[in-house]
Amino acid sequence: MTQRPYNFSAGPAAIPEEVLQQAAAEMLNWNGSGMGVMEMSHRGKEFMSIAAQAEADLRELLAVPAHFRILFMQGGGLAENAIVPMNLSRGGTVDFVVTGGWSQKSAKEARKYATANVVASNEADGHTTLPAPAGWKISPGAQYVHICSNETIHGVEFHELPDLKALGSNAPLVIDFSSHVASRPVDWARVGLAFGGAQKNLGPAGVTLVVVREDLLGQALSICPSAFDYRVVADNASMYNTPPTYSIYMAGLVFQWLKRQKEGDFTGIAAMEARNLGKANLLYNFIDHSQFYVNKVARDCRSRMNVPFFLRDESRNDAFLAGAKERGLLQLKGHKSVGGMRASIYNAMPLAGVQALVDYMRDFEKTCA
Amino acid sequence: MTQRPYNFSAGPAAIPEEVLQQAAAEMLNWNGSGMGVMEMSHRGKEFMSIAAQAEADLRELLAVPAHFRILFMQGGGLAENAIVPMNLSRGGTVDFVVTGGWSQKSAKEARKYATANVVASNEADGHTTLPAPAGWKISPGAQYVHICSNETIHGVEFHELPDLKALGSNAPLVIDFSSHVASRPVDWARVGLAFGGAQKNLGPAGVTLVVVREDLLGQALSICPSAFDYRVVADNASMYNTPPTYSIYMAGLVFQWLKRQKEGDFTGIAAMEARNLGKANLLYNFIDHSQFYVNKVARDCRSRMNVPFFLRDESRNDAFLAGAKERGLLQLKGHKSVGGMRASIYNAMPLAGVQALVDYMRDFEKTCA
Repeated sequence: MTQRPYNFSAGPAAIPEEVLQQAAAEMLNWNGSGMGVMEMSHRGKEFMSIAAQAEADLRELLAVPAHFRILFMQGGGLAENAIVPMNLSRGGTVDFVVTGGWSQKSAKEARKYATANVVASNEADGHTTLPAPAGWKISPGAQYVHICSNETIHGVEFHELPDLKALGSNAPLVIDFSSHVASRPVDWARVGLAFGGAQKNLGPAGVTLVVVREDLLGQALSICPSAFDYRVVADNASMYNTPPTYSIYMAGLVFQWLKRQKEGDFTGIAAMEARNLGKANLLYNFIDHSQFYVNKVARDCRSRMNVPFFLRDESRNDAFLAGAKERGLLQLKGHKSVGGMRASIYNAMPLAGVQALVDYMRDFEKTCA
Repeated sequence: MTQRPYNFSAGPAAIPEEVLQQAAAEMLNWNGSGMGVMEMSHRGKEFMSIAAQAEADLRELLAVPAHFRILFMQGGGLAENAIVPMNLSRGGTVDFVVTGGWSQKSAKEARKYATANVVASNEADGHTTLPAPAGWKISPGAQYVHICSNETIHGVEFHELPDLKALGSNAPLVIDFSSHVASRPVDWARVGLAFGGAQKNLGPAGVTLVVVREDLLGQALSICPSAFDYRVVADNASMYNTPPTYSIYMAGLVFQWLKRQKEGDFTGIAAMEARNLGKANLLYNFIDHSQFYVNKVARDCRSRMNVPFFLRDESRNDAFLAGAKERGLLQLKGHKSVGGMRASIYNAMPLAGVQALVDYMRDFEKTCA
């Protein structure tokens, strides 16, 4: 088989080749059951074992403590923008740190259910920095503080989660970690709830991961749909409504792939972090030493997953994208709200893919000289 | 390749073998794009074409009129139990006809958002009949009337949709057609909104079909999450939030399979209806002529899709199921709330599968003689 193209999509995004191969091989007959995974009752022992294994593997990979529940839901991050305040706001005050397009959307949606305050923002500098936690004006009695720990569109990432207790607040921290989950460890001691769509680092679109501290369950507003009430979902092991069975199976295959990964002495998520650091450094270093390309994000808060960059001469954008596609470098166009280019280099992107991108960027620059 | 087992799961359920084979073949590289469908941005031209084709094929198959919108959503039927009243109730009065487990759940969930009246019920006879529409006491000013047009658990099906106008009501009819969609034509002139999870007749779990009359859009309650506001979903061609891309692709393959089906002079849904009638008649006739098995549903409202039946001697249930599995007849155990057996014979179940079941039932009876 020839080399597959490198796919830099921001999500839905590339899936490890060996995961896709296993899924194809098992499509008509999983593990001798005579059924494909898509065809199994979610109440049958075959699928129950697939779901239980996926949850156990994820708990191990992310080192999720026992007092957190792992939920597999539907609707993606955008639905969670409503589901989180329906479950946690008690109709009171909730705080948002706005650092890009996603946290902005989250704050707006929360206003349907609660008083949503923006307690810090990087809007004034075009979402290219992160406001230091020491300056956040957390509301007294805030039911939670929401951050997007990696802004997919703007390429800004929290490399350390804020310690709200140190800031004098007992509010739980809610993180939208859709686009960097499983790319690095999570400091659960600082987290109340984490949510993310699967379609960047965990598998296919259509399943949403929610990891929630057990004491936060059971306080949903009365208008919260039962299917989205965390207490109901947790009590039914994510099977109150029919779960997106195939997406959970695919995510489970990705978890097993993650467990097999090694990088030097590291395995699993630690291996991914080492590899992701290497990939990000390669690309940012190249851009920073170039007069042709530019990344506008402050160095200490650049995302390891999503690298937006611009050609200084934007009239060459179409030629850049066409040449990239010819070299098998796909889906590099930037988000419409930012423009330019964006390379999403999630877990499934090997270092060789980033090297191929850098090689192409160098070559393209030469052809323009 | 040897014969696959016959899978009688109530859902998620069997998928046509040739659909699974095509999906497996395209897993790593769809149509020469170098990407699997799971890996494509939902905003890219490849996936946009897949989604547009799926919608067009479904519109053609089900003969959906132009003044209805087709939405692909998430959360399944149970989420729609909340999403429908959030969108259509205006917080007023909504009516339910309770005919089994699913309509019961729908009525209960609607009470979070509206005054939900049960205007007819078959509870007194154990959900084995259908209350005649002439006797329904539709509320003046009801925002809609909800029925479950096929009760998956109790095996009761409306073979004709009620004509609410003839009953003197202008309320739109809402149908939960999860478990018989695409098994027969739909009389859209009588319908305001139809919804269904895909995992019975349309494809994998994780995508929910909503077909809604255009004039019913735009009246969602303020607490309706944006991702579940039909107006927002329709305006964004089902891509306000990242859609469950792979599930839509799989449903699209099923739609193409449906379009290829022929039965005598019939094609598409008409062919499926003819075939489904033949399958249902074969199984019900056998049961009705047996002293060993029994189906308790009144003959004129028996489901063509879900056939619950009992062994008169229920001590033989485990032996029946074990023997069935040995013959490659899978997932025949009845729903826990009803007991006994249930054969779900959706579109993907060929007549040969029902014949194999009947042959086994006859043989099993003989071994007990």
